[in-house]
Amino acid sequence: MAGPLVGVSVLDFTRALAGPYATMLLADLGAGVIKVEEPGRGDFTRENGPHVRGVSSYFLSINRGKRSITLNLEHPEARELALRLSEGVDILVENFRPGVMERMGLGYAAVRPRNPRVIYASVSGFGQTGPYASRPAYDMIAQGMGGPVSITGEPGRPPVRVGFSIGDIGASLFAVVAILAALHEREMSGEGQWVDVAMLDSQVALCENAFARYFATGEVPGPIGTRHPVITPFQIFPTRDGYVVLVVPRQDKWVALCEALGRQDLLADERFRDNSARTRHHADLEPILAEVMRTRTTEDWLSFLGQRGILCSPVNTIDKVAADPQVLARDMIRQVSHPKLGSFKVVGSPMKFFRTQHTIEQAAPQVGEHTEQILKERLGMSDAEMARLRREGVV
Amino acid sequence: MAGPLVGVSVLDFTRALAGPYATMLLADLGAGVIKVEEPGRGDFTRENGPHVRGVSSYFLSINRGKRSITLNLEHPEARELALRLSEGVDILVENFRPGVMERMGLGYAAVRPRNPRVIYASVSGFGQTGPYASRPAYDMIAQGMGGPVSITGEPGRPPVRVGFSIGDIGASLFAVVAILAALHEREMSGEGQWVDVAMLDSQVALCENAFARYFATGEVPGPIGTRHPVITPFQIFPTRDGYVVLVVPRQDKWVALCEALGRQDLLADERFRDNSARTRHHADLEPILAEVMRTRTTEDWLSFLGQRGILCSPVNTIDKVAADPQVLARDMIRQVSHPKLGSFKVVGSPMKFFRTQHTIEQAAPQVGEHTEQILKERLGMSDAEMARLRREGVV
Repeated sequence: MAGPLVGVSVLDFTRALAGPYATMLLADLGAGVIKVEEPGRGDFTRENGPHVRGVSSYFLSINRGKRSITLNLEHPEARELALRLSEGVDILVENFRPGVMERMGLGYAAVRPRNPRVIYASVSGFGQTGPYASRPAYDMIAQGMGGPVSITGEPGRPPVRVGFSIGDIGASLFAVVAILAALHEREMSGEGQWVDVAMLDSQVALCENAFARYFATGEVPGPIGTRHPVITPFQIFPTRDGYVVLVVPRQDKWVALCEALGRQDLLADERFRDNSARTRHHADLEPILAEVMRTRTTEDWLSFLGQRGILCSPVNTIDKVAADPQVLARDMIRQVSHPKLGSFKVVGSPMKFFRTQHTIEQAAPQVGEHTEQILKERLGMSDAEMARLRREGVV
Repeated sequence: MAGPLVGVSVLDFTRALAGPYATMLLADLGAGVIKVEEPGRGDFTRENGPHVRGVSSYFLSINRGKRSITLNLEHPEARELALRLSEGVDILVENFRPGVMERMGLGYAAVRPRNPRVIYASVSGFGQTGPYASRPAYDMIAQGMGGPVSITGEPGRPPVRVGFSIGDIGASLFAVVAILAALHEREMSGEGQWVDVAMLDSQVALCENAFARYFATGEVPGPIGTRHPVITPFQIFPTRDGYVVLVVPRQDKWVALCEALGRQDLLADERFRDNSARTRHHADLEPILAEVMRTRTTEDWLSFLGQRGILCSPVNTIDKVAADPQVLARDMIRQVSHPKLGSFKVVGSPMKFFRTQHTIEQAAPQVGEHTEQILKERLGMSDAEMARLRREGVV
């Protein structure tokens, strides 16, 4: 079945993570993504390990379903080919530093006259405007400057990183939302536009609750381990053999928990009367619950508490997640085929459609795998012209 | 200026976080969002602290720009009003447990005959299908079961939570992408559809790189502090008075770093020859760099390394982020006005449009603030009918 974006074409100048994750989502939804790569080396993340028979698992994970064309953007003719390709697409995405596309003659001002309907999306570290606009950024810089690191980790311990690259991927997600909103608007106005999404801004948007608390109280939020800032208990406890997530979102569940643990005495304790009292006195409550939770295994607790209507879950490592019956039933682990590697696994798409579900089947391309196909199909190149472009180092 | 989704209407049955954050993004983009709330209490997160003069900062942060209508969905007439409202909207969003909307007669099967063009989006813990479909989930459960917790934190220490609610917000973002993709497809097909996004699936999609590494090597990724799994050094170091993020994404930057630190000897060290060697020997490299980094203050390092073209940044706490010149220049801290609180701050939208930028100006509504306005405007209710609905406890 075709995905909801079938027929939508994307010219993709991105490399690294923030851009490619965004165009991966578009490809997952059925859009045709043409990834422009440097001849030879290609996207530099092709060098990121671990490699499987010489192929980067890092690259494979976020470039599935795209076609690759090589263009040597140092060469004026390659730039002209890029402009000609941009004439026929709905969306153009780039994640260079502000100014780089302009210097190559591929900025919005150059593309727009050729294709006024194009949605031109720039994903960058700090955005197209403001005093830091020209600075480069990487995931850790966005995470560190934007707030996430300052609220992640154990109190009193050094800061830690969010374990996946939310500094990049946060921007990817907001960029795709912005692109699709602009695509909708184009149906009305007939006009494309320039969309500007920054990694730093995206971190601020993700941390909205920490900012809301700070604006409300003036207190600066810090790391709080596994606790929730305003709901208690809503955290991880060690068990006899591991960990369990215990979530008490409402008062009736608190009553049920105390009864299940045989600690009805806590119900009469003023410090734990309601959620806000429990949050205030979390330092008193935690050791009490921790002592009880250490007495059984995780599996024991999941079954014992689960039967009593108390929300709890395991803390799964990646291997456990990849084998989880729900994750498998939801088609979140996909087999794709690659000319060199045969069949291998990537994660699926969390966007499920009852009428237009798209299936992820195609692996990430090899560098320039589709150069000839794309230039023939979209610009009507002849074999002789192709040969000349190769000879002259344009593609 | 109007946002790109101006004219798009959304009927919003969501509460808590995953749903409301999604409909907030739609409202930020200019869509008209009608939030359906329980009479009296409203969305239960209105009880989440900290409160500002009785108003929940938690609720305010994620419900700005929406209108609120109360409907007592226990009452058959309220359900009929909800169905009538659904006839006139482009998008319906709900985040009840699978089956709840159906039991209220408001499932997709009930809404579709009334409005075949509706994009009906269900955001849930585990999705509409699979063995766990009927289980409830909260942020920590999704974070714990989906992988993020297992790769966040210090090696050898207990797991920690991602400091913001990525278990919820991850699903919000994928849901909005899916909704807008379906909206685009509707322009072509004329038909709406049911969209299904799960918190658990979304965590898996966010952790793609951890899964890619696991599939490539069979090794189960664990928490690694502030390190990057495949780039070294790309992490946080303590300084004389705080922390600094140091990012060395390429070999030329490694050379520059060693020269800047006066440690050219490291360039000759086989263990640190290239990025993959440095990643393999990170445990040897870390103490060497840590010792140097402890000798200056953070500000010193930012200026010293910055001048030498080495990427580094501070680790900002939330107060520092809220006062950062770039964050302010990007309009990421907005003043909105509220009838009870006057002017107060919320974070802005990271989605910037050069032609159709929407401005966040309106605060979150009070419970049922727009009930009368919405019912008169959309269903042509008279004053007498309004009075009867109130008297009979329908709204």
